Amino acid sequence: MSTQPTSRFGDEAVPLELLRARAHNQRWAEQPDDVIPLTAADPDFPAAPVIRQALIDYVSSGVFSYGPAGGLFEFRQAVARHWRQQRSADLDASGVIAVNSAAAGLALLCRHWLSPGDEAIIGDPVDFLFGHGVRAAGGVPVTWPIDRFTPLDPADLERYLTPRTRLLCLCNPHNPLGRCFRRDELETLVRFCLERGIKVLSDEIWSEIVYPPATFTSLLALAPELAANGAVVHGFSKSFGLAGLRVGYVAMADPEAAARLLAGSEQPSTVDGVSTLSQVAAMAAYSPDGLAWLAEFQAHLRQRRDQTMEALQAMPGVQAIPPEATYVAWVRLPPGSASAETVVAQLLERQRLAVVPGSPRWFGQRAAGHVRLCFATSAGVLAEGLERLAAGLEEAARQSG
Amino acid sequence: MSTQPTSRFGDEAVPLELLRARAHNQRWAEQPDDVIPLTAADPDFPAAPVIRQALIDYVSSGVFSYGPAGGLFEFRQAVARHWRQQRSADLDASGVIAVNSAAAGLALLCRHWLSPGDEAIIGDPVDFLFGHGVRAAGGVPVTWPIDRFTPLDPADLERYLTPRTRLLCLCNPHNPLGRCFRRDELETLVRFCLERGIKVLSDEIWSEIVYPPATFTSLLALAPELAANGAVVHGFSKSFGLAGLRVGYVAMADPEAAARLLAGSEQPSTVDGVSTLSQVAAMAAYSPDGLAWLAEFQAHLRQRRDQTMEALQAMPGVQAIPPEATYVAWVRLPPGSASAETVVAQLLERQRLAVVPGSPRWFGQRAAGHVRLCFATSAGVLAEGLERLAAGLEEAARQSG
Repeated sequence: MSTQPTSRFGDEAVPLELLRARAHNQRWAEQPDDVIPLTAADPDFPAAPVIRQALIDYVSSGVFSYGPAGGLFEFRQAVARHWRQQRSADLDASGVIAVNSAAAGLALLCRHWLSPGDEAIIGDPVDFLFGHGVRAAGGVPVTWPIDRFTPLDPADLERYLTPRTRLLCLCNPHNPLGRCFRRDELETLVRFCLERGIKVLSDEIWSEIVYPPATFTSLLALAPELAANGAVVHGFSKSFGLAGLRVGYVAMADPEAAARLLAGSEQPSTVDGVSTLSQVAAMAAYSPDGLAWLAEFQAHLRQRRDQTMEALQAMPGVQAIPPEATYVAWVRLPPGSASAETVVAQLLERQRLAVVPGSPRWFGQRAAGHVRLCFATSAGVLAEGLERLAAGLEEAARQSG
Repeated sequence: MSTQPTSRFGDEAVPLELLRARAHNQRWAEQPDDVIPLTAADPDFPAAPVIRQALIDYVSSGVFSYGPAGGLFEFRQAVARHWRQQRSADLDASGVIAVNSAAAGLALLCRHWLSPGDEAIIGDPVDFLFGHGVRAAGGVPVTWPIDRFTPLDPADLERYLTPRTRLLCLCNPHNPLGRCFRRDELETLVRFCLERGIKVLSDEIWSEIVYPPATFTSLLALAPELAANGAVVHGFSKSFGLAGLRVGYVAMADPEAAARLLAGSEQPSTVDGVSTLSQVAAMAAYSPDGLAWLAEFQAHLRQRRDQTMEALQAMPGVQAIPPEATYVAWVRLPPGSASAETVVAQLLERQRLAVVPGSPRWFGQRAAGHVRLCFATSAGVLAEGLERLAAGLEEAARQSG
């Protein structure tokens, strides 16, 4: 395993002082100084230089008037071009709607497609935002058990359908399982939904963090009638570290469907909207220099994934399958462990390590007995975090044994 | 009348090329090149240099991690300090919640306070966002006639109350009437509401654009029990030209009420939120250099108001009362005119001037027969716009006469 860091993602590239001021959502700024947070999925590195330069250039002229409701035309064009070139997707600028975050896009689509009492299928486990978005729309989340390897099977899904089922929510690549769905299983599943009038909401926010030989297939890269049976949400927080800028998008193969979504949203009224400056950052992310930075980040993350897995395999009783995608590790605690919440509280108190517990609240019922840790940091910070995890689990085993 | 422009707000300071690229929402970027838009209330000038510099400084370090749900602590502190120092308001940082725009804050408060079927009193005329926010929350807007001079009278208001009345929405200073409510009328009205369990939502987005000798009194500057009976919404689009950055706030005298509002919002889930970069811009706006820029802008606007009124008074049959606040003029068309929508369409087609019609859709039933024009531009652009208005009205009078 090579842990030779490039200077851009080396130990010295993690700006601890700035992170302690700026990284919220359970991270550095919300922890005591001696705690290492491997919590929210958010990188510990500064944004790509091309993004910073684009922001400075835009800011210098100082005009910050109202942007258009659906996003800057240049932004929508840049996104569409990116998907055509990088994802083999047939996407037009008019099929792209800028939203305040991928999470906001997910919530918007749930409101758009669900009436009160309608049911939506979500995975178990999966990120809490799916159930949250469905409930906020008045819908009822119906959980579909999912694991790392069992193929998505319409015959299995059928058992969870009722006459009120309107929506299937996919997280592809899957958080927290780290799984990329295969093209053939997606095709079968989406066709099954299309035939039953069920829309597919595909959260593809992790789709740029994929480790070869795994490959990612977008909903929008399927056959036209399948691609048009739903929408993709995406953002810039995971791939480019722009969570604080609040920018993402909804992408739809059918421009008329996108126009209806926009018209039904609060963006034309100016109640909702996306900072034009954040859209400028996002356009720079999809520039050649931005994608070159991303390729370096991906290479770094692959090393961190391997570092994480090697360390986890040395911890007695711990189970963790190397993720094909995402920069989170989904860790099954040793048999006989206390609850994930208890273990997480002890890790924080005794080892000064913060990770996310596999609570129903965050990931669903089948997340019990797991913790999730984010490895989008330097080799050195990660090594220290993994040592603390090992020490904490060893201590817990001594206590229970 | 002095029309000697300072260089910061002179004719040459209006960056037409940039506005044609960046100013949406019915403005330069959405009109043919030969049209002068005096439409959306949004200045034609670049943002203050201190704002641009603060953005550049923040961007240079490149860390854009998740911000806190309620806004950066420094942002909340800066807002609270501003209100204490400039508005004589007893506001603590914990009473401030960053929101995506003043419009978003208004919508959030409506959802927070109204259950389906609850009634909210809104002025007629008033900006469309009040009725829009009430309806989006499932509430019923009940319109209360308001004009430029008649004091707000609880005895009059009482006629519009029912057992379902939960909320009074005030726009102070008032858009489009340009009126500042007096302290004594606010006190009487808010006490009347307090005694009846009716909350007060005070949209004070125009409160920095006030022309002496008029003075502005905030809800938050009233006696503590009155100040605590509601909330203020404010933003940075009108005073500082930051509409594109999507940043505003809700301010509440009662920090616990603010905490409940935040907890009930979609900000803790990360579905909603405000760009940290936009908050940095907003903090710079409230710095001494930002406020010095604002004072110059106010002085410029006062000249533009006088220029606008002088021109309007020379137009036969037109009525317009000089606004005490805001940079919009509320213009009553001459008796016998076609509808405001027709006049606006003719002005656009024949004179290449865009203004906002006093449609029920934008301002309420009592807005009929009016147009609204924004004068936050240079003396030269405004002179040309007013000439086109005069020519258009003269032509219309010839046709109808």
